[in-house]
Amino acid sequence: MSSTWGEKVKISIFGESHGNAIGVVLDGLPAGEALDFDAIALQMSRRAPGRDLSSTPRKESDVPRIVSGVLNGRTTGAPLCGMIENTNTKSGDYDNLKVVPRPGHADYTAFLRYGGWNDVRGGGHFSGRLTAPLVFAGAVCRQILQRRGVLIGAHVAGIGDQSDTAFDPSHISEDLLIALSSAYFPVIDPEAEKRMRETIEAARMAQDSAGGVVECAAIGVPAGIGDPMFGGIEPVLSSILFGIPACKGVEFGAGFGAAAMRGSENNDAYYYEEEQVKTKTNHAGGILGGISTGMPIVFRAAFKPTPSIGMEQDSVDLTTKSDAKLCVQGRHDPCIVPRAVPAVEAAAAIALINMMI
Amino acid sequence: MSSTWGEKVKISIFGESHGNAIGVVLDGLPAGEALDFDAIALQMSRRAPGRDLSSTPRKESDVPRIVSGVLNGRTTGAPLCGMIENTNTKSGDYDNLKVVPRPGHADYTAFLRYGGWNDVRGGGHFSGRLTAPLVFAGAVCRQILQRRGVLIGAHVAGIGDQSDTAFDPSHISEDLLIALSSAYFPVIDPEAEKRMRETIEAARMAQDSAGGVVECAAIGVPAGIGDPMFGGIEPVLSSILFGIPACKGVEFGAGFGAAAMRGSENNDAYYYEEEQVKTKTNHAGGILGGISTGMPIVFRAAFKPTPSIGMEQDSVDLTTKSDAKLCVQGRHDPCIVPRAVPAVEAAAAIALINMMI
Amino acid sequence: MSSTWGEKVKISIFGESHGNAIGVVLDGLPAGEALDFDAIALQMSRRAPGRDLSSTPRKESDVPRIVSGVLNGRTTGAPLCGMIENTNTKSGDYDNLKVVPRPGHADYTAFLRYGGWNDVRGGGHFSGRLTAPLVFAGAVCRQILQRRGVLIGAHVAGIGDQSDTAFDPSHISEDLLIALSSAYFPVIDPEAEKRMRETIEAARMAQDSAGGVVECAAIGVPAGIGDPMFGGIEPVLSSILFGIPACKGVEFGAGFGAAAMRGSENNDAYYYEEEQVKTKTNHAGGILGGISTGMPIVFRAAFKPTPSIGMEQDSVDLTTKSDAKLCVQGRHDPCIVPRAVPAVEAAAAIALINMMI
Amino acid sequence: MSSTWGEKVKISIFGESHGNAIGVVLDGLPAGEALDFDAIALQMSRRAPGRDLSSTPRKESDVPRIVSGVLNGRTTGAPLCGMIENTNTKSGDYDNLKVVPRPGHADYTAFLRYGGWNDVRGGGHFSGRLTAPLVFAGAVCRQILQRRGVLIGAHVAGIGDQSDTAFDPSHISEDLLIALSSAYFPVIDPEAEKRMRETIEAARMAQDSAGGVVECAAIGVPAGIGDPMFGGIEPVLSSILFGIPACKGVEFGAGFGAAAMRGSENNDAYYYEEEQVKTKTNHAGGILGGISTGMPIVFRAAFKPTPSIGMEQDSVDLTTKSDAKLCVQGRHDPCIVPRAVPAVEAAAAIALINMMI
Repeated sequence: MSSTWGEKVKISIFGESHGNAIGVVLDGLPAGEALDFDAIALQMSRRAPGRDLSSTPRKESDVPRIVSGVLNGRTTGAPLCGMIENTNTKSGDYDNLKVVPRPGHADYTAFLRYGGWNDVRGGGHFSGRLTAPLVFAGAVCRQILQRRGVLIGAHVAGIGDQSDTAFDPSHISEDLLIALSSAYFPVIDPEAEKRMRETIEAARMAQDSAGGVVECAAIGVPAGIGDPMFGGIEPVLSSILFGIPACKGVEFGAGFGAAAMRGSENNDAYYYEEEQVKTKTNHAGGILGGISTGMPIVFRAAFKPTPSIGMEQDSVDLTTKSDAKLCVQGRHDPCIVPRAVPAVEAAAAIALINMMI
Repeated sequence: MSSTWGEKVKISIFGESHGNAIGVVLDGLPAGEALDFDAIALQMSRRAPGRDLSSTPRKESDVPRIVSGVLNGRTTGAPLCGMIENTNTKSGDYDNLKVVPRPGHADYTAFLRYGGWNDVRGGGHFSGRLTAPLVFAGAVCRQILQRRGVLIGAHVAGIGDQSDTAFDPSHISEDLLIALSSAYFPVIDPEAEKRMRETIEAARMAQDSAGGVVECAAIGVPAGIGDPMFGGIEPVLSSILFGIPACKGVEFGAGFGAAAMRGSENNDAYYYEEEQVKTKTNHAGGILGGISTGMPIVFRAAFKPTPSIGMEQDSVDLTTKSDAKLCVQGRHDPCIVPRAVPAVEAAAAIALINMMI
Repeated sequence: MSSTWGEKVKISIFGESHGNAIGVVLDGLPAGEALDFDAIALQMSRRAPGRDLSSTPRKESDVPRIVSGVLNGRTTGAPLCGMIENTNTKSGDYDNLKVVPRPGHADYTAFLRYGGWNDVRGGGHFSGRLTAPLVFAGAVCRQILQRRGVLIGAHVAGIGDQSDTAFDPSHISEDLLIALSSAYFPVIDPEAEKRMRETIEAARMAQDSAGGVVECAAIGVPAGIGDPMFGGIEPVLSSILFGIPACKGVEFGAGFGAAAMRGSENNDAYYYEEEQVKTKTNHAGGILGGISTGMPIVFRAAFKPTPSIGMEQDSVDLTTKSDAKLCVQGRHDPCIVPRAVPAVEAAAAIALINMMI
Repeated sequence: MSSTWGEKVKISIFGESHGNAIGVVLDGLPAGEALDFDAIALQMSRRAPGRDLSSTPRKESDVPRIVSGVLNGRTTGAPLCGMIENTNTKSGDYDNLKVVPRPGHADYTAFLRYGGWNDVRGGGHFSGRLTAPLVFAGAVCRQILQRRGVLIGAHVAGIGDQSDTAFDPSHISEDLLIALSSAYFPVIDPEAEKRMRETIEAARMAQDSAGGVVECAAIGVPAGIGDPMFGGIEPVLSSILFGIPACKGVEFGAGFGAAAMRGSENNDAYYYEEEQVKTKTNHAGGILGGISTGMPIVFRAAFKPTPSIGMEQDSVDLTTKSDAKLCVQGRHDPCIVPRAVPAVEAAAAIALINMMI
């Protein structure tokens, strides 16, 4: 592994934040799939920064160029490469990062891992910017899944101490997922958005940042998808979700909450609804033994607050081997959680296409 | 994937709960590693059921037979196969499971996945019994890691609403991990064990079950281990942890708690201690950008309550396509969390050996 | 890689020639497949030594024990482990091999690779005995393929300078493949067997050994199976064929012969036969662009002569770092080619099931 | 698999002959490796067509653009993407290929594999043009290997019935490999080049094409590299070599010739030369048990004659389901073997870096 993921549909992500370009190769897509480029552009714009006060003002066009694998608007079955040129990158801000690493970033660990040869500008290959090719790959995969009846959508479940209404995991409508998956700040309860935006703004005003939780659902996944043990939906999905920078927790269904329940509460009782087996509750998040039950697949991913903050921080000087102070220059995203939503959805799409195709 | 995991050291787990035997092949181990069979037996006995009231009374000897890959007590470099014969398996109890699936178990999903051909006795390949070869594989790997300075230990962080003292993630001693990793009900606070045992006993008396959380730490992992994106410690570790039956959540460092913090709180400030870069706090769980910081690696795994409970449950009859009642026969583990501790440690060992060797 | 192979159906082979047992885990088999144990036993006996003068007199029962993955004679979908106990192994003969390595064997290279910790008895994990689990795995896979219309059979195409009639690659009948795949010394021309047995016997009398070529065909593979580049039938098949000890060459269709042809000779012209596209010749061996044409898949594998020979050979003493003489003790197979036939067929079956399932 | 290959250093090749661009992502390269861009350009030009009468006159600049993974001329450790824009592609010539497939090409098999959605222009993703990113990837890897003492070089061993002097597999000098690996028509015997060029020219004049054999060697690979069974040098190398379009045979050391030898001839006797273990002969091609012996690694790859020929051929019309005649339009390479040499060297470099890094 590393920046390559998948078995049936493999993705190979490349690029660095301030390099020439970033992109992804998808190998193994089915042929003949029509691509809706507007739908791709929508997902890219959901991830792109600079839309409002809650995100960094740096402008990114992020219109992916299709390099290969598509002819006359349809997949050819050959590897699909999508590439996004990096423009408007000023690299002067980052000279000091190999000397005084930023807390919470990969500066120090990457320095050790690559013997100092890594591209540190803007975080290099560790930058959240690398979620752009991930979102692109997911935008391609979700169209293909949608044609097979699978819909994916997520919302900002929480920012700091403010939270949105959670999914009712047994009853998630197509309409809700369609609405969420096209929104820039997707929430179930519009009031929650207001409160969460205030939390972000307060962090921004304090030259600080906020973390949060994304809750995601997939409906239409037939029962019986997945494999036991390491091939289950949970391990497969988590192995791509934790690849999203800043993701520090993943839970399925009741997740950590299930740990506090008794079996009689947590077990989802079966019943028949029009010849279909369903469960009355869905604490399992639609997954038993790693395999889909036919109920909505529901999971949450926790994102730590953006490590780039305006206030002075304690760090070290790796050259003098002494303690040092650091001020992260430039303007940074006080909260990446809304922009992480399409990345989480993308991860779900890429994982599910690997298990369903 | 599925029951095979790993790149450098691959494990391939086989067997079914009531089949002839269960076991694992480890391919890629370094040669010349002396195996401490007592240490292996200790880990196996920590996982084995039947030790006290908190676990199922069924007896399992679970002494693994080394089939290959070891000569004169040392690894040969060839695939190491360890096998455990299944004895004392009564299969009469399980005849009905393909007709009326147990809530919370994989009976229904496996039935669909395998067209009804799966071995349903005792859960078959989906049984928690399959953690025995995992624990064995981990017991082998952790010895090899230990020789390279890495110690792994975990404790029962919570059962139901009762919790143990958490690790101080910045200061975890060898002594603590050694003590935890040889205990049957490992805790940091002995009082917590008492309370948690009471919670389990109360669930048992109510013919119910309890879930819980395991917190695990690895110390001695050098800074600079891991890869970006999908090759990071979080995705790699989670992809094996979620392979443990009943695991529904995984978080690293502050995890979901980080989502509620501000960046200024969550960022771990660097400082020098005797020419070594350290962090004052360790909310990152020892991992930044997927790569180890040199601080203790700390993570938690949530386990749902045992789905097998004595009380009557609602289910369906798949043959008549109607609702049905179900009573799970036999005596079952009211809480598998203490026995999951060595499995979590094993998962950590197997993941880390893949990243360090 | 190493002793693990495959993506959809993974095999993990374990064991050493004189260890406790050898075996294989097959992960990813479809569920509900009835196993014909007589057919498995037949394939095992074709590979087993001791049947006649052309092979080593050491007796091996080699009846595999099904450890997991099968219930009531059918695959459960869980990993299938088959194990063969090693009996009748005398290990006294091999003490000297780490000091004076046998030419043509892996003694020296394995010594370096594993720092001397490898099990050298009988060649350890490098022994041709490890083809027994491969043949077992293939025997399972070919039954499943056969149910989908695919038949595999191979013959001894040559021993030393004697050769059998080659397949007519455009016309290979089911009857021929059925006959070949159940014979102990499979040939197309019975006279060739006689000549080739004489060649083997002459080598044996001279305390020497003989190599040879196996030609294999698969019919019934539908057109359109395979992937471009590294996912083609040729790279996939070769990567398992070269895993058979002593295999030093692999060619598909006209193979090296194609290199001497002109395009107008080598190109296989298309024509219609009863609404089916066929090719008049089949120099492509049924594969174009890595993908099946629907014509028989035909390939050849070259096996070097058994390196164990009775006559004295030049070697070195690794302890004294000086030249040395070596006499390989015991009685050895003067020609393993007939016994390699079922291993080649097995490799084809395992490769094809990975591409077709 | 498919267009992705490798474990430690993964390559993911994308692009279609007449698409926008072709390229490759290399994931897992060591960081800090200086890249010699002139050396890369040399390898690209060796593969490029249009240099002389023996190859197609279509011009390709093929200067790869480094998209990512390199900073200040050194690898950063992040995925390295190299991309080559397709220019000068006229696509009008290829309209008919989905109706009347060209014999010897992948037109028909790709049509079935991808349901007709594949890009058929110039062979699409099946084109020999896709060896350009392979050669680029190899050019990067071989520099890194060279710094570790490994040199790779190959020559045109045969064209049609004409052949070059073979390597003396026990004595291959650095000078020879350096000379071969920078030549456009690399041969050991200059007279052979003349004869082979005549063979190509004769084929060209006859509107026909010629095949041939490439022989490749790698020196400086330390003894002890490789793994048993499917992880051996032979299976690993063959799985990438057969990914080169038109490759139909691969043999190591004496290869198919070994099949005709006796053990006493084929076994390579060990001896000491200045404290180094060597073999007097090298029929093993430097590989025993899949692991390097320290002697030169030597192998041959057979390439079929270019299927594109000027003369009329028999084919079928897939729309009318009837036989048809076909004339391949345009000017085509009468022999791709000289241009395949750098691709074979590249494959060796990519395989070896995966086993040595």
